[in-house]
Amino acid sequence: MTDAITLDDLNRLDDAGFVSALGGVFEHAPWVVEAAASGRPYASLADLHAALCAAIRGAPVERRLALVRGHPDLAGKAARAGDLTDESTAEQASAGLDRLTDAEFQRFHELNAAYHARFGFPFIVCVRRHGKESILRRFARRLDNTPEAELATALEEVLRIGALRLDQKVTAADRLPVVGRLSTHVLDTHRGRPAEGVAVELFELWGEERRPVARGMTNADGRTDAPLIAGRPLPIARYELRFDLAGYFAGLEVPLADPPFLDVVPIRFAIAEPEGHYHVPLLATPWGYTTYRGS
Amino acid sequence: MTDAITLDDLNRLDDAGFVSALGGVFEHAPWVVEAAASGRPYASLADLHAALCAAIRGAPVERRLALVRGHPDLAGKAARAGDLTDESTAEQASAGLDRLTDAEFQRFHELNAAYHARFGFPFIVCVRRHGKESILRRFARRLDNTPEAELATALEEVLRIGALRLDQKVTAADRLPVVGRLSTHVLDTHRGRPAEGVAVELFELWGEERRPVARGMTNADGRTDAPLIAGRPLPIARYELRFDLAGYFAGLEVPLADPPFLDVVPIRFAIAEPEGHYHVPLLATPWGYTTYRGS
Amino acid sequence: MTDAITLDDLNRLDDAGFVSALGGVFEHAPWVVEAAASGRPYASLADLHAALCAAIRGAPVERRLALVRGHPDLAGKAARAGDLTDESTAEQASAGLDRLTDAEFQRFHELNAAYHARFGFPFIVCVRRHGKESILRRFARRLDNTPEAELATALEEVLRIGALRLDQKVTAADRLPVVGRLSTHVLDTHRGRPAEGVAVELFELWGEERRPVARGMTNADGRTDAPLIAGRPLPIARYELRFDLAGYFAGLEVPLADPPFLDVVPIRFAIAEPEGHYHVPLLATPWGYTTYRGS
Amino acid sequence: MTDAITLDDLNRLDDAGFVSALGGVFEHAPWVVEAAASGRPYASLADLHAALCAAIRGAPVERRLALVRGHPDLAGKAARAGDLTDESTAEQASAGLDRLTDAEFQRFHELNAAYHARFGFPFIVCVRRHGKESILRRFARRLDNTPEAELATALEEVLRIGALRLDQKVTAADRLPVVGRLSTHVLDTHRGRPAEGVAVELFELWGEERRPVARGMTNADGRTDAPLIAGRPLPIARYELRFDLAGYFAGLEVPLADPPFLDVVPIRFAIAEPEGHYHVPLLATPWGYTTYRGS
Repeated sequence: MTDAITLDDLNRLDDAGFVSALGGVFEHAPWVVEAAASGRPYASLADLHAALCAAIRGAPVERRLALVRGHPDLAGKAARAGDLTDESTAEQASAGLDRLTDAEFQRFHELNAAYHARFGFPFIVCVRRHGKESILRRFARRLDNTPEAELATALEEVLRIGALRLDQKVTAADRLPVVGRLSTHVLDTHRGRPAEGVAVELFELWGEERRPVARGMTNADGRTDAPLIAGRPLPIARYELRFDLAGYFAGLEVPLADPPFLDVVPIRFAIAEPEGHYHVPLLATPWGYTTYRGS
Repeated sequence: MTDAITLDDLNRLDDAGFVSALGGVFEHAPWVVEAAASGRPYASLADLHAALCAAIRGAPVERRLALVRGHPDLAGKAARAGDLTDESTAEQASAGLDRLTDAEFQRFHELNAAYHARFGFPFIVCVRRHGKESILRRFARRLDNTPEAELATALEEVLRIGALRLDQKVTAADRLPVVGRLSTHVLDTHRGRPAEGVAVELFELWGEERRPVARGMTNADGRTDAPLIAGRPLPIARYELRFDLAGYFAGLEVPLADPPFLDVVPIRFAIAEPEGHYHVPLLATPWGYTTYRGS
Repeated sequence: MTDAITLDDLNRLDDAGFVSALGGVFEHAPWVVEAAASGRPYASLADLHAALCAAIRGAPVERRLALVRGHPDLAGKAARAGDLTDESTAEQASAGLDRLTDAEFQRFHELNAAYHARFGFPFIVCVRRHGKESILRRFARRLDNTPEAELATALEEVLRIGALRLDQKVTAADRLPVVGRLSTHVLDTHRGRPAEGVAVELFELWGEERRPVARGMTNADGRTDAPLIAGRPLPIARYELRFDLAGYFAGLEVPLADPPFLDVVPIRFAIAEPEGHYHVPLLATPWGYTTYRGS
Repeated sequence: MTDAITLDDLNRLDDAGFVSALGGVFEHAPWVVEAAASGRPYASLADLHAALCAAIRGAPVERRLALVRGHPDLAGKAARAGDLTDESTAEQASAGLDRLTDAEFQRFHELNAAYHARFGFPFIVCVRRHGKESILRRFARRLDNTPEAELATALEEVLRIGALRLDQKVTAADRLPVVGRLSTHVLDTHRGRPAEGVAVELFELWGEERRPVARGMTNADGRTDAPLIAGRPLPIARYELRFDLAGYFAGLEVPLADPPFLDVVPIRFAIAEPEGHYHVPLLATPWGYTTYRGS
């Protein structure tokens, strides 16, 4: 990750420095940042972001089209050849697009070809907001859009990508509403207190495959010390949370069946709002449990 | 399975016929059945069973030892060569012992060797009461027994095997307490009624591998038309029940997230009492659920 | 209650006997039963009931109006004077209309007067399907009906009253769908088994007043030996179920707080479908519980 | 309530001022505060409190006895005559001891007489930690103590009273661990989000009588803006929390039965740890709910 810069410093740079500092926010399109330079000083990151959005939305259609065309294909040849910008490389890796099987790579290849043929520009999606399955699902769906609707959709995704990059690059008193949070909480309803010392693991699911995302141990309040995911968008994907319930109760010498009725409890759920707050608690005894989307 | 015979008919047979009819109940040990022939007529299957148990328990130690020695090794050479009695073949298959990987076969081979060396007789367990993992776990544990305790344990298992075979072979007004029951029930607490039309699948777990056991669809009362397992012992094992919750709620046009927060809900639990009644219900909305060992 | 008669015997009686046997089914209106006499023999109670309904629905409007007018006022002067038919007396008592406070009596008096003034016939409702609050609520609502709609509503209630009386009076292979069922079940999720020995009480609520309806003790399966209400319609009303949870767990020597976090657990719910099946279970530990409309 | 004073100011007062400022902390026993004056300056409220406790614990038995004897009877003649210190008056009122029925007054009178006869000093309990029922229960139980154990118990209560008074009177960077917290949270598991706009009421229960304690409305996070009780000990007592569930769901136009299956949901629970954190949430649909001691 490039070093962050403060909003104050950005406000004080000359125009060339400003454009250079925010260079990568909009892929191959320095004109967007140039257009926002004269509006400085910005009182907040939100104001700066609004100015960048206005520059894009107010540009002539050819320019907007060119902006879209400046993006690389997802999981395309450029990605395989290592020809992407640093930002694109990191983003595509975040969704696992750098570790595709041959069949998946072929699927992306076909979708990219069909999409280009229909719209004449590359498929753009803010990959940090999606797991691999979600990207493929949306890719296929968006092929059904009209060209006008799809150009608008593509620009919205460009703005989302820019907002995330801006939020990472610039330190300010405010943050853009681009991050979500996933947390958990284990209540021991056998003993009527928070369950301390429950090993928790989070996986992202790809089909039946599980990719580790986070792990932790519940503290005296029954929570992990840090949220399972925070400070970034929650990728739209299916997840499995695993709680080592039998390990916890065995440690307390609560009598269990042999083998224990409940051992490692899996909770499968999906995230659909990358900027949302998901709280997925477990209320448990050795003989039953409750889970739900909490707050 | 051999044809069943009624208790009345058994009571009326001559001694040779009686011994022949119950031939396979105790492996290579017709003397057990012979000893019970003179006690006829038996008023119930339980009485007949008690007489057979008494014959074994009252026999001199050499005879009991011979009875135990008459059993084949579990997953041993005889099994691979197809040299078992029909009953043993079917029983070992029920626990998947006929489909071992080479590593598993090797593990059984080592345990059999260690067991023979220690006790001088083959390891006997009522395999219909266990999944593969449970058999291996018990096999290792029983190696720690004293020879006296282990002979008693082995005879108990012989009696369990015999009780199950007797219960299958003989039709009577009563049944032996050798079977369990596993059932489920889905309540839609979003709409306050039984959930009709939920696809349910039951798997036995071997490590992370899933072996299909039963599948069904919930009816108007939220239950499957038949129990998931009934009429036989419930193998001691870990299980996963899967409920297609999103499919159910989508069919009712209940608004769901995209992807749905809960889709196929997995419940993992273990059975520890083969003759028990396990009821594992699901109380669910699109946003949360409760499960427990019910009745 | 008058003695029951079998459908077979009804089929064999002469017409006068038949009319006499079913005399009280439709209040002061022997013509309904007379009309159905010639259709005998009836193969089922449902068929007999259908014939009685057809007789009423096919009668000229004056006759239907007369049928309605033959009913007594609810909680009216006749009731106070003891001038009702036996059936009406028992029915009005079932809803507590024989134990009204003066204010309630006054309220009924006013509603009766307003209703007579508007429709020219007495207010009829099948009181066995309602608690006192529900009767008063419906009484007030039905004053807003048009006269035509209200006559139809009144006749539907006459048919409901008749169906209930018929179902009580006649024994047949089938029963009319006029009864409901309320049951409960207590699961001890602390220990993973049915909770045996939980004292359960059911009250009907009038405002904050509680009128005892049923009481029982859970058995080895966690259920009361008999349903809390069965064999009759479930009165539309608010209820409170009380479970002596602390008494149960104290008896098992489960450690409890002093005083226990949960002691007698009250569940308040309402019944809206008198012919429905309501199952209201409790899943409990000393520290929490779940309840829901089950099946 | 008397005005608070800062710890800094207390540290700077002369001895007479110090004793006067903390005059009421130990009833009629200025010597306790005098003994602690020389230890100033105190770095924290905890240190000051420890010095006061040490003064009491180190005093000769006659002085400790005199300290205990300086307390008024609970709900005694002095209370009726208005002869108590301000602190005692406020404390006794907090538990409702100023509004006793004649029967309750008589019960206190008898217990006071029996206690005096047995121990020779008045019954002392930190009433802010108890509801009326809890005081009576403990009163009766403590009559069974030996005189030595009871004097120790009485002094512990004196220290608890003093700690609470000190915590209220003195403002410092730290607070004494003398307060608890009771909170709630409503989750709408029908829609998978916090339930906003649920009216919540908290009552303390005396027998079947309900005394209002707090009321509120859930906010966008499903919580009341302030805890139901905070900043003071939680009286050991039985409570009822009431949630207007039908009002909430009706406002969202969720289809409900008529009358609704669940209307105002009562949760009855008891508090046993006055300095604890009790969280009593409700997870609800129109057809069922879950509650538990949370955190």
